[in-house]
Amino acid sequence: MAYTQLVDQLIQALRCLPGVGPRSAQRMAIHLLRQGRSDGAFLAQTLEKALTHVGHCLRCRTFSEHDLCNICSNPKRDRSILCIVETPIDIIAIEQTNSYRGLYFALMGHLSPIDGLGPNEIGISELHNLLNLEHDIEEIIIATNPTVEGEATAHYIATIVRANGKSKCTRIAHGIPFGGELEYTDSNTLAQALARRIEI
Amino acid sequence: MAYTQLVDQLIQALRCLPGVGPRSAQRMAIHLLRQGRSDGAFLAQTLEKALTHVGHCLRCRTFSEHDLCNICSNPKRDRSILCIVETPIDIIAIEQTNSYRGLYFALMGHLSPIDGLGPNEIGISELHNLLNLEHDIEEIIIATNPTVEGEATAHYIATIVRANGKSKCTRIAHGIPFGGELEYTDSNTLAQALARRIEI
Repeated sequence: MAYTQLVDQLIQALRCLPGVGPRSAQRMAIHLLRQGRSDGAFLAQTLEKALTHVGHCLRCRTFSEHDLCNICSNPKRDRSILCIVETPIDIIAIEQTNSYRGLYFALMGHLSPIDGLGPNEIGISELHNLLNLEHDIEEIIIATNPTVEGEATAHYIATIVRANGKSKCTRIAHGIPFGGELEYTDSNTLAQALARRIEI
Repeated sequence: MAYTQLVDQLIQALRCLPGVGPRSAQRMAIHLLRQGRSDGAFLAQTLEKALTHVGHCLRCRTFSEHDLCNICSNPKRDRSILCIVETPIDIIAIEQTNSYRGLYFALMGHLSPIDGLGPNEIGISELHNLLNLEHDIEEIIIATNPTVEGEATAHYIATIVRANGKSKCTRIAHGIPFGGELEYTDSNTLAQALARRIEI
């Protein structure tokens, strides 16, 4: 190996990042050593601090360094709607629509028995507790991804919510996305878009 | 912002990595917090250690935590050939060919007056010193990239080497790459490939 041990170690360590292969890791390491030393030092410190202090919001399971995340602790949010998503990234995506003011619950994954992800791993018992404790929830929107695992998870959660019997349970709509073209839309989606057509 | 401050800071800090935009940074941060905590801690430590200890090889300017890098300090390398490259990544690329046993000199960039990169920034004075000190160099191979800046840098270095007058100066060959197709080769390259044709 032509790199010295420490440079090589840095390249290997960078490969833990998702989407970073051997070549990108090499490019990143060289960039950090060459032009990005102060940025790199800041990254090292921030990463260390975040890994030490960031845990989960006690209510919605998203990442937070406080007991409650920014959304759960915000008194202005509508506590009658709960949106269930797979990851914190989905929360951000929904927040960016500026069209939802309720609360969230992050499963931090989806049901996937093959990967050892059962109800315990996706926080179903925490969801149970939340449904039993918070009596003002009127609607639960299930916003897991429209993948095989996401749909299975949605159905599983729907049975739990229905068994609880206190709130309405909805699923986000399928259909053709804005800017999409019918020609390139898969037939499942197109079939749903036709079946759920609305009067204009 | 829906993320808490520390998570948001981590996302921002990750954006110092080349090729990492807002979305990848978000994905990386969530991955590190979710499944990659031990890898992340190792990355933070390694990055901090590398930035503190890794400097430049005193002879060839590549990155090294020792005074001399692995190649410069290897007594088995052929000290009569010196290959001049732009970056340490190019050294690795040449090493991987297993067809070069000489030494290197890394410019750590190329001449680019528009970016404020002049002879001082690309270590020309160090190269001068090296040429004056090492009398057994018989050939200097200039292996800067075949870009406008790389070619300009190659010509600039060639004049210096010729002025020094002690060693032969060569440039790596242009031509069509293996597995390439004539149809997709640019005309400059094809013209060179024709002009430099060899008897078979």
